[in-house]
Amino acid sequence: MADARPIGVFDSGLGGLTVVNELIRRLPHENFVYFGDTGRVPYGNRSRETIAKYAAEDAAFLMRCGVKLVVAACGTVSSIAPETGDRLPVPFVEMVSGGAVAALRETRSGKIGVLGTAATVASRAYERQILAQRPTAQVTANACPLFVPLVEAGVTDRFDPVVREIARRYLAPLHAAEVDTVILGCTHYPILADVLRDGLGDGVRLVNVGAEAAVAVEAVLRSRSLENPQETPGRCRLCVSDRVASFSELASRLLGAPVDAAEIELVDLDRL
Amino acid sequence: MADARPIGVFDSGLGGLTVVNELIRRLPHENFVYFGDTGRVPYGNRSRETIAKYAAEDAAFLMRCGVKLVVAACGTVSSIAPETGDRLPVPFVEMVSGGAVAALRETRSGKIGVLGTAATVASRAYERQILAQRPTAQVTANACPLFVPLVEAGVTDRFDPVVREIARRYLAPLHAAEVDTVILGCTHYPILADVLRDGLGDGVRLVNVGAEAAVAVEAVLRSRSLENPQETPGRCRLCVSDRVASFSELASRLLGAPVDAAEIELVDLDRL
Repeated sequence: MADARPIGVFDSGLGGLTVVNELIRRLPHENFVYFGDTGRVPYGNRSRETIAKYAAEDAAFLMRCGVKLVVAACGTVSSIAPETGDRLPVPFVEMVSGGAVAALRETRSGKIGVLGTAATVASRAYERQILAQRPTAQVTANACPLFVPLVEAGVTDRFDPVVREIARRYLAPLHAAEVDTVILGCTHYPILADVLRDGLGDGVRLVNVGAEAAVAVEAVLRSRSLENPQETPGRCRLCVSDRVASFSELASRLLGAPVDAAEIELVDLDRL
Repeated sequence: MADARPIGVFDSGLGGLTVVNELIRRLPHENFVYFGDTGRVPYGNRSRETIAKYAAEDAAFLMRCGVKLVVAACGTVSSIAPETGDRLPVPFVEMVSGGAVAALRETRSGKIGVLGTAATVASRAYERQILAQRPTAQVTANACPLFVPLVEAGVTDRFDPVVREIARRYLAPLHAAEVDTVILGCTHYPILADVLRDGLGDGVRLVNVGAEAAVAVEAVLRSRSLENPQETPGRCRLCVSDRVASFSELASRLLGAPVDAAEIELVDLDRL
């Protein structure tokens, strides 16, 4: 049994490319279709209804591309609208479940921090999943609304006083709670890993939810015999709902590999 | 001749409430309908096509509300898609024309700075209008992608080192060009006026494009006999395309007056 169909990955924008990076690293022979909803980014400060509607449209686009599995690389969708997967005819992997399990695996004290968008933190999705598995755990979550703009503006240097000071403020309640493990609950945040490690100190472990999702995708493919048997490297189609200036520069930074703007496909969700 | 129909104002989000603030101050007896496209904010990092499409939809919504004049309070729409007004059956006021005229009125050296979103700066709309009126003027524009997120996150205190340092970086090319007048080409920026004044120094004048637009609206109403003769204060309807957490807090800050979340109407552009 084998399946050469691509894996679909969607996100509100380009942040999900950090998840694609982890997927390609773990599953180099699989094909991917990425959809970034750059025409409607960001999702993190929108209402639950709007987030659910956008997520359903994103997943529907990927289904039209013939994918065998859908990954919601968007931390906000994973927290607010995980039911997006219920209506799909293929397996669905979101970010919260794997992130919660990984945090419980990594923590020694049971004190876990969560960083995410306002919507992700307000949803308490990580907290609920963690407490369902370990009722004695203590979860401290904090919204970091300036992290995504900083990453998109390229203000990410480890020694830049602006990003260090903003990180210091966002991390203060996690320090006060003495967490030993922090979930990076938004796909942009791995780009700030150095700054966050400096701000948190040596004893604190970071959970990259994209890397955990890649583990989950591999397990689902294996258990359902959906793996691609090819031995050559897979292809990755990049689709977006809006094409903007400095797009390929940001995409390259997030994917960790060069992205040629000419290879990015523009999709009009309204006309599908 | 008199006309009690409301004036329509639209913006990509809530920033345009700073323009409503100026309009109410100048035209207290007029009625207003504000539409903030909070479901698709921000426009500033989207493509020209997408911005033009969204602007046309926003203006169409206001027309359905029976407005007598449409104000594009969005700096990005005013720069990228001023043709939005060409298709309307009522007068249209955007931000760039008045801002350019005001800068030429205020400047002594002819060296003018422009701050705006990436899309506004890339459009060179202010530069073109200024040079058309005074070919010897020197215009230095700089994009400030972090200002809107800072205002929306409430990081606007005059003495906050984060916003001061970010302002210092954005203002550096304007300092180098020795501008004596700076156009605040985005509706959020008046909230940062103190920080910008500190960063620019005493000799530099700021142009608030919302205040200039209010002057233009008054002139249009007068010349076309569209003024509202009522003596009581006008009403202001607030409509948005998405309702989000901490919405009324941000709206109050931008409008400069308390906004009750219960009074804000939710509009679904897709269902109109």
